[in-house]
Amino acid sequence: MMAASVVISGVGTSNFGRAPQSRIEALAHAAIVEALDDARVAPGDIDAVWLGTVFGPAGVANRVMAASGLAGVPVYSIEAACASGTVALHEAQAAVATGRHQRVLAVGVEQLSTVFSGPIVPEASDPEGRTGLALPALYALSANRYLHDYGLDPSVLGHIAVKNKYAGSLNPRAHLGGAPPDIDQVLGSRAIAGPLTLLQCCPMSDGAAAAVVESAATARCDDPVTVLSCAFVSGTWWNSDTSLPWSVDTVRAAARAAFDTAGLTPADVDVAELHDAFTIGEVLTTEALGLCAAGTAAQRAADGASALGGEQPINPSGGLLSRGHPLGATGLAQTAEIVWQLRGRAGERQVDGATVGLVETMGGGAAGVDGNACVVALLGGPG
Amino acid sequence: MMAASVVISGVGTSNFGRAPQSRIEALAHAAIVEALDDARVAPGDIDAVWLGTVFGPAGVANRVMAASGLAGVPVYSIEAACASGTVALHEAQAAVATGRHQRVLAVGVEQLSTVFSGPIVPEASDPEGRTGLALPALYALSANRYLHDYGLDPSVLGHIAVKNKYAGSLNPRAHLGGAPPDIDQVLGSRAIAGPLTLLQCCPMSDGAAAAVVESAATARCDDPVTVLSCAFVSGTWWNSDTSLPWSVDTVRAAARAAFDTAGLTPADVDVAELHDAFTIGEVLTTEALGLCAAGTAAQRAADGASALGGEQPINPSGGLLSRGHPLGATGLAQTAEIVWQLRGRAGERQVDGATVGLVETMGGGAAGVDGNACVVALLGGPG
Repeated sequence: MMAASVVISGVGTSNFGRAPQSRIEALAHAAIVEALDDARVAPGDIDAVWLGTVFGPAGVANRVMAASGLAGVPVYSIEAACASGTVALHEAQAAVATGRHQRVLAVGVEQLSTVFSGPIVPEASDPEGRTGLALPALYALSANRYLHDYGLDPSVLGHIAVKNKYAGSLNPRAHLGGAPPDIDQVLGSRAIAGPLTLLQCCPMSDGAAAAVVESAATARCDDPVTVLSCAFVSGTWWNSDTSLPWSVDTVRAAARAAFDTAGLTPADVDVAELHDAFTIGEVLTTEALGLCAAGTAAQRAADGASALGGEQPINPSGGLLSRGHPLGATGLAQTAEIVWQLRGRAGERQVDGATVGLVETMGGGAAGVDGNACVVALLGGPG
Repeated sequence: MMAASVVISGVGTSNFGRAPQSRIEALAHAAIVEALDDARVAPGDIDAVWLGTVFGPAGVANRVMAASGLAGVPVYSIEAACASGTVALHEAQAAVATGRHQRVLAVGVEQLSTVFSGPIVPEASDPEGRTGLALPALYALSANRYLHDYGLDPSVLGHIAVKNKYAGSLNPRAHLGGAPPDIDQVLGSRAIAGPLTLLQCCPMSDGAAAAVVESAATARCDDPVTVLSCAFVSGTWWNSDTSLPWSVDTVRAAARAAFDTAGLTPADVDVAELHDAFTIGEVLTTEALGLCAAGTAAQRAADGASALGGEQPINPSGGLLSRGHPLGATGLAQTAEIVWQLRGRAGERQVDGATVGLVETMGGGAAGVDGNACVVALLGGPG
């Protein structure tokens, strides 16, 4: 299915943060216009659009299209929880790979500040919601199990936040940029759901991100990034036959598919953006992807191995913890960061010599279930 | 793009009506299990799922999957306003046509009774909502313009409702079945937005519908229905350069594409299911599809030409006006009716000798804009 000639020729993002006064289509427009310019194309050069959003209002896709000069182009609005943006990328690359379309835009947009005044609590009718727990509490359950299994001190998780918030302090578009906290500040911040403290939880962000996807043959930019593989796996719900924390099996399956298709191994990955909605999320995901041995991900953050300047930097953008988590936009914000890294355009966050990057986004699933949707993409190049 | 060998091998629906006590996945399950049985396949035979919903809760796709034994199969949740179900069909047939997947399920589900306690009023930030008008009022504007343009008496629109509610009285799954009203009852029902009376407006329904889509080569059922074409057109918003009522240009474009691809003309259509959210909607759509001359659609309903037993029956299921309008499910409910008609399994509603059927669904757009999304599918066969 994966044609080696599918490339990302341009990416763009909005700033991330709270923007309740913005129109949602204005958030998207900032990302779209940057992506189109980056790819050296005009709205009229786009054949189709896949748009990811979770809480965007009904019909938001066409509002975005009209506001960005894309009205009349086929647009498919996708919802896959936190992976909505990466599923849009998956569909965009599939459309090019299968010859359905020549040049496609994937865009993700979310404006949580206009929808939620407090934390997101899954509704009671939802299997996620049956526990009555908000998401930090659900992640805390996984964290406690993980710490128990590996005999680790809870403080080790804090190093993920220190690492990512330092990286985010170098990202001018991050929701929570500014002076990065040290480990004492992370661990000393307000308790949310033990062992997770406030600075170990991602913010609820507004923002947008976009990518232009086409074949290498049509790309006009100088430095297209190749989509080496893009794997999408739906998780199972309830009746899970694993004792692993939720989502781990789904991430493993998506990683296996992505690495197999690309003919690569985790050791080939120079830089990764992955789903650190909470510190424990980065830990479990890093290990499920095979980027390090089980039980070691948090210590590697503490040691600097997964930090900027380390051997395999993870979340150089600041990740969800610092760049922010505008649900439907997150996967494409991750994608934009990896594209910038591979092109050597990541500024102070640049990972030297990165030629293979990984994007992973996990959507939904909690409390004994295995996640809705996981996308793992491997990107390479340019050149 | 359209391979002649893509078929619908099975369809299913729930009952339509108000079902606030049901779990949304139970509504979907009724449709899915019927469609799978009809296609003579099991959940394990399905390679991927496209699910259409407008107001389904975030993550509903995976809840539906788990409840119907499909957990782990890739699922793509699509929102395209009232056309969500037909866009899911479009994506399903494209997945088979391009070789992405072999056997795909398209499913639409909606449970409006748990979301709205009154009429749907587009939010004020939406271009549809800027007028401050609810949807019946927006359609009423088009109705008044249409009646003016053709010098028609408002009462003529009522015959659309009489026709469709009679057909719906023969449909045991219709939301508003039962004794059909006569023209006096339609015109004498409560005024909603002049000239539209209550019985000229569709109900807000709960329900689900599904279709199994695969290649003719893999179909196990005896009577697969061929997808002759399936065209999707996104409309433009504001700055419309037409003086036509909204959506007409978009329907025309989708119809042109569908007929061109299939090599057919409107005269070849034996039976159609199209978007009669309001009586004026059927009138404008019938004419935009080219099924009759401009200004004549309502009179043809009055004369019986578009009624059951007429020369080209329209909305034999009862349409949105009687079968109901569970937004994300509507397009696939229309599809199910056409498949039953082409197979000669429509019971008392059967259109004799139907071999070519048309499905049209319009999603969103109002008040001087041209609609979000229109799908026109032409189905043929079986055999």
